[in-house]
Amino acid sequence: MHRYRSHHCGALRASDVGENVRLSGWVHRVRDHGGLLFMDLRDHYGLTQIVADPDSPAFTSAEKLRAEWCVRIDGQVKARAPEVVNPNLPTGEIEVFANEIEILSEAPELPMPVFGEPEYPEDTRLRYRFLDLRRETLHKNIMKRSAVISRLRELMGGVAFNEFQTPILTASSPEGARDFLVPSRIHPGKFYALPQAPQQFKQLIMVAGFDRYFQIAPCFRDEDPRADRLPGEFYQLDIEMSFVTQDDVFAAMEPVMRGIFESFADGREVTQVFPRIPYADAIRKYGTDKPDLRNPIEMQAVTEHFAGSGFKVFAGMIERDPKVEVWAIPAPGGGSRAFCDRMNSWAQGEGQPGLGYIFFRNEADKLTGAGPVAKNIGEERTEAIRSQLGLKEGDAVFFVAGNPKIFADFAGKARDRAGRELNLIDENRFALAWIVDFPMYEWDDEEKKVDFSHNPFSMPQGGLEALETKDPLTIPAYQYDCVCNGYEIASGAIRNHKAEIMKKAFAIAGYPEEVLEEKFGGMLRALQYGAPPHGGMAAGIDRIVMLLVGAKNLREVTMFPMNQQALDLLMGAPSSVTPKQLRELSIRVTAPQD
Amino acid sequence: MHRYRSHHCGALRASDVGENVRLSGWVHRVRDHGGLLFMDLRDHYGLTQIVADPDSPAFTSAEKLRAEWCVRIDGQVKARAPEVVNPNLPTGEIEVFANEIEILSEAPELPMPVFGEPEYPEDTRLRYRFLDLRRETLHKNIMKRSAVISRLRELMGGVAFNEFQTPILTASSPEGARDFLVPSRIHPGKFYALPQAPQQFKQLIMVAGFDRYFQIAPCFRDEDPRADRLPGEFYQLDIEMSFVTQDDVFAAMEPVMRGIFESFADGREVTQVFPRIPYADAIRKYGTDKPDLRNPIEMQAVTEHFAGSGFKVFAGMIERDPKVEVWAIPAPGGGSRAFCDRMNSWAQGEGQPGLGYIFFRNEADKLTGAGPVAKNIGEERTEAIRSQLGLKEGDAVFFVAGNPKIFADFAGKARDRAGRELNLIDENRFALAWIVDFPMYEWDDEEKKVDFSHNPFSMPQGGLEALETKDPLTIPAYQYDCVCNGYEIASGAIRNHKAEIMKKAFAIAGYPEEVLEEKFGGMLRALQYGAPPHGGMAAGIDRIVMLLVGAKNLREVTMFPMNQQALDLLMGAPSSVTPKQLRELSIRVTAPQD
Repeated sequence: MHRYRSHHCGALRASDVGENVRLSGWVHRVRDHGGLLFMDLRDHYGLTQIVADPDSPAFTSAEKLRAEWCVRIDGQVKARAPEVVNPNLPTGEIEVFANEIEILSEAPELPMPVFGEPEYPEDTRLRYRFLDLRRETLHKNIMKRSAVISRLRELMGGVAFNEFQTPILTASSPEGARDFLVPSRIHPGKFYALPQAPQQFKQLIMVAGFDRYFQIAPCFRDEDPRADRLPGEFYQLDIEMSFVTQDDVFAAMEPVMRGIFESFADGREVTQVFPRIPYADAIRKYGTDKPDLRNPIEMQAVTEHFAGSGFKVFAGMIERDPKVEVWAIPAPGGGSRAFCDRMNSWAQGEGQPGLGYIFFRNEADKLTGAGPVAKNIGEERTEAIRSQLGLKEGDAVFFVAGNPKIFADFAGKARDRAGRELNLIDENRFALAWIVDFPMYEWDDEEKKVDFSHNPFSMPQGGLEALETKDPLTIPAYQYDCVCNGYEIASGAIRNHKAEIMKKAFAIAGYPEEVLEEKFGGMLRALQYGAPPHGGMAAGIDRIVMLLVGAKNLREVTMFPMNQQALDLLMGAPSSVTPKQLRELSIRVTAPQD
Repeated sequence: MHRYRSHHCGALRASDVGENVRLSGWVHRVRDHGGLLFMDLRDHYGLTQIVADPDSPAFTSAEKLRAEWCVRIDGQVKARAPEVVNPNLPTGEIEVFANEIEILSEAPELPMPVFGEPEYPEDTRLRYRFLDLRRETLHKNIMKRSAVISRLRELMGGVAFNEFQTPILTASSPEGARDFLVPSRIHPGKFYALPQAPQQFKQLIMVAGFDRYFQIAPCFRDEDPRADRLPGEFYQLDIEMSFVTQDDVFAAMEPVMRGIFESFADGREVTQVFPRIPYADAIRKYGTDKPDLRNPIEMQAVTEHFAGSGFKVFAGMIERDPKVEVWAIPAPGGGSRAFCDRMNSWAQGEGQPGLGYIFFRNEADKLTGAGPVAKNIGEERTEAIRSQLGLKEGDAVFFVAGNPKIFADFAGKARDRAGRELNLIDENRFALAWIVDFPMYEWDDEEKKVDFSHNPFSMPQGGLEALETKDPLTIPAYQYDCVCNGYEIASGAIRNHKAEIMKKAFAIAGYPEEVLEEKFGGMLRALQYGAPPHGGMAAGIDRIVMLLVGAKNLREVTMFPMNQQALDLLMGAPSSVTPKQLRELSIRVTAPQD
């Protein structure tokens, strides 16, 4: 018999009754039923119930066992009595009567239990991550993550992409976040940087003629702690392809994105054909470039109905400033004063002056708009708004007014809030879409200058001519996101493959050619030697796994995460190093700056 | 028609004749045949011959084209005349008559040509890596590397291993080489380290109950430039499994190692059942723990035949020191004075006093040992040696004498040399084997103390009892290598899963418990909470790919390598950083130390 096991702990069935078996695993829990000891033995594959009766030579050992000891158990498979069969457990028809127990390794009193998964302070969980990871939910999440990544590789291989590894010790990358630096020992005073993304390398791979690249790529950003991002490293599905237009990227990647959700949807609905929503439309309809499309609410402009109306606040704003618009947020089923007041209070909590509304009810057999706004604008304008939005009895509509650039974000939140409060969101769906035509540039109000709004390496629509003739702020780029349920899960672009367009694009954003040469010299050189048209995208793997398992925290889908203070509590990183190490690296630590 | 291509450059066949097609790719070379322009258009998938005749509207564009410009070409597929069909090219039956050429991007005079792959200085190749990678051999090598890694993943999935990513920003690891350090911004004066290998993490994954882990893992070592290692990073197939003995690891991994070679062997023979050779035997037979088993030569001790013999140098050594042995290196077919003298000269070049030998020839119908050694030891002893080694007419045998610990390495080299010189090595074979029973400890002559000979986390054979009762230098560990054609391609061990054995093991090597706690506290803690018996290995992917493609240099199988001075010439790393960056990291650069 094998030294440790003849079967996994999830393997035994009624058909094995009578067999002498050997199992190894962890003591999940022990129960003493009047002299008879019952124990759940757990391994990666499942649980098996072990029984030790006082006549068994194993009984003395069994009495000693404590939770999470690692043991080998020899015994005989017996059928459970029908009334104690556990239909929820694959091994629930049998139990193993122990006749020999070997303690493979013990454990002292546990700092946190595995069985039952009670909540525990995060620092304890991270310090004893090896215990935390034995817990059923986290264990399953990590396995799911592994399966998702494996499936992504299958899907990418299926569409003829090849995986290549790009360097991790490299030069600073242009993603705009802060680099992690690695001092060079051989070149004193010089530093490598860890890649924020393999952006330049994947473009170089295209210039090198490889046609279709992907990578499950580790990326590194030295950012301040944020709830939705782990400090340090994260993984993305990074892809790039040559001789393509935006449509080709979508045609290649839509089956992959859909496929990864379908593979793990467990019956939840996945969007079959991704809508393509221009950035400007997304802002107007949803107030955000990452709309939750499970929420059926679409906003509309209703400025005209307020212009010159009796609702003086809005009418005055409209008159004073041509940029002012009024947007309506329809709220199907929200037609009660109580709900409308609740939304209004919520808006005030968000720092807004309030949230104007009309709700529609039946009054004397007539569909009537109620509330102060309706009163002020009168019946005709109220009806015009109702008719434009297709509202019915029992519905409401909320209004936000001002410069859309300023209020769009809040309007989007109000849309979310209304959708959630009214239970309009189907939790059993993955609603995917492409957001396209992102602007190439945006106005940097702090620096009072035009700057890139996303990736400086994207191709502006209209190419060099557009850059030379148009207002930069009106030029869209071939730049797109993939969104799911209100999250950006991927981002990409058709790249600028021409050095002269790149120089012009950087000049518009105020970067002289020397800066371009200094920061992206390798890239610029590559574009000068027959660079092919190319494009691609990068999808956030952690986010996709979170959506699939329904986790709210990245630490629930990461094997060994750091805590929010960027500390690895298990391994004790970061840590002090020796003076010799610092000397070798030609660096000195300065006093901490408080 | 698609914006860039209706077909790849490797796609068109005789059956496409008459089609109007669109191709995109690079101008591989242009030939002017009396007004008719011939051009090879190249993409990732192949080459297609393009023809432009002076009547074509594309001719004017075609005349402008230079090597490595990126172009789109529309044209009609025509059959080649039978006498110019190229059977070596998949598209060799056709050519495309261009009627439109769009220049997608130009290139200036090339710093190095792609066509023909002439040798070029390495620094030029690395600076213009995007051109270098377009060259056929390197392009193929990189594709092979990608295929090897993909196949490894398939093979590992096939034996139920799951891939997990382990942290890259972590604590110092115990592999014994120098760490790359990453200063922490949030924790001034503290540093992360890049993993030399995920050794501790994979063991923690086992303690966390995941049973079977693998990873194509990036590893980082800050080592001084070495010909056989790239500076910075390398990849290994890292695996670990729980509840296993050494035999289980071999049973799981032998099919994977054999499988990866078989998948890319192209008809070359691959060892079907890996011999298991104890470390001590490998040293005695081959002079090395990474023998090239394609070489049939096996050494034997022949000390007794020299003890008290007339060959006074050896006889004296044997008499003076009981540690002295004489090893014989048989050289089948090496039985000529010329060959033996050549070996002797080579040995002197290696800093040895020389290499004693006997060669066997037919003298007066009698098999006779010739040379000074034979003369000195006489006919009887010569015959005894010949008989022990099974030598025949035309064979030779070389002798090394002394303390085997000192001469074994040289003896191994002599064995290699003889094997190569005598063409005994079958180049069309991948000869794989396990080397087992590596010693747990070795004598550190510099520090005058016992130290770990390999991995301090290995399980000593005999466990705690062995550590407590035996001479440490005689204790083998459950530690093994996989070798192929003279290279170590993988290394592994059954791990020490018990904290008390680990403490004892470290104590023997002179490390007090505080050091263990400080360096490997997380690991030690994990071993105290029900750690399962476990073991695994790590295989060097770069080395395997090199063997498979027959490359002599790691830079021939790596997409974007640094040069031997640890410089990334393409991206310009390492580089200076700004004072602001240094301030944020609370470090200062000290003057370079010359």
